[in-house]
Amino acid sequence: MTKEIKIEKNILSKNDQVAAELRELFARKRLLVLNLLSSPGSGKTTLLEKTIEALGSSLRLAVIAGDLQTERDAERVRKMGATATQIETGGACHLDARMVAVALQRLELDNMDVLFIENVGNLVCPAAFDVGDDFTVVLISVPEGDDKPGKYPTAFRKADLVVLNKIDLVPYTNFSAQRFKTDVRKIRPDLDVFEMSCTKKEGMEAWFQWLKTKVAHKKGSAQ
Amino acid sequence: MTKEIKIEKNILSKNDQVAAELRELFARKRLLVLNLLSSPGSGKTTLLEKTIEALGSSLRLAVIAGDLQTERDAERVRKMGATATQIETGGACHLDARMVAVALQRLELDNMDVLFIENVGNLVCPAAFDVGDDFTVVLISVPEGDDKPGKYPTAFRKADLVVLNKIDLVPYTNFSAQRFKTDVRKIRPDLDVFEMSCTKKEGMEAWFQWLKTKVAHKKGSAQ
Repeated sequence: MTKEIKIEKNILSKNDQVAAELRELFARKRLLVLNLLSSPGSGKTTLLEKTIEALGSSLRLAVIAGDLQTERDAERVRKMGATATQIETGGACHLDARMVAVALQRLELDNMDVLFIENVGNLVCPAAFDVGDDFTVVLISVPEGDDKPGKYPTAFRKADLVVLNKIDLVPYTNFSAQRFKTDVRKIRPDLDVFEMSCTKKEGMEAWFQWLKTKVAHKKGSAQ
Repeated sequence: MTKEIKIEKNILSKNDQVAAELRELFARKRLLVLNLLSSPGSGKTTLLEKTIEALGSSLRLAVIAGDLQTERDAERVRKMGATATQIETGGACHLDARMVAVALQRLELDNMDVLFIENVGNLVCPAAFDVGDDFTVVLISVPEGDDKPGKYPTAFRKADLVVLNKIDLVPYTNFSAQRFKTDVRKIRPDLDVFEMSCTKKEGMEAWFQWLKTKVAHKKGSAQ
């Protein structure tokens, strides 16, 4: 067991080195980079589609989509007019910094304002790997249940922002937004939760505003 | 990379040895063991609650519940009258055979007919680890989307049965059961899909019948 832990630590520290190099590169390019984490089917790709629809004319958006298999997510995002490239992990349960570095070679960083890294649908493993992003956005959808923060604390500890998606389904479930937010704040008292329904395009304004502010800040930041 | 792969193979082959020992033990005890795999919030614990409610008087049911943190799942199951023990993985993304072997020491195997191993909510990593079970049951819930089989093929390749849960939410989503089943059968043409709503207790009869048949078969099986 000790040996396994040591190996894991080595892999993580190597990952942290690559992530730090990526972070430097993104700072030089004044490119805002967001890491999207969630369970399968929480709505990461739909969030991206609606964000591209709303902001694609004023911001240059690009996506790196991670999936075990299939190019489906990248295709969906491309249809909305954003630049997208896929990482097929071939079974690996998370993206790491090296995979992102390889995918970056297929993108022109000088021509973009925001890069979304859509991680593999998995609320556990991706939380352990830094990919050089500025902010980690954790999505949870209403049907997953309001008990998820307590059960998956690692993802919430890593989060800089929480998106609570599919609030249009609240009437058909026993989900309590109040219980959810109380649970979130037990882990991170300062964490913002944006409630929305991406498919219904409801409640997304705060997210758009947050994104525009962060882009402006990154563009204006001293190098 | 080659070194990492070799290490992973070693860990897996050690796990397979322990899993084989568990399988022998379960055969000796004529105990039916099911491994439940799903994303967070697909309804594994609710499936167990309703199964205990329906079959708890005729079958002796026990649960090993895996979670990163909290005893919530085991508590919910105990309230329904089943024996339950929790494995808090402390961050690990899956259960392995050794963790199950340790948890078994807290259970009396002679006094049970079915042992459910409720894996960590994660559709990726648990699919790689044999825990000595007779059958792997993969749960998917309607709000996760009908595209999940193609995106998470490993779990479906491992599955012996698929439970499609939360069918009461179909009217409020763009989920197509037909597309879902077509997607499943591209991976495994022979795989049964039981459609149900555990919270509404709808469509669970086929699952109960399946379970009773498998218990009878295990009890009657030659050693």
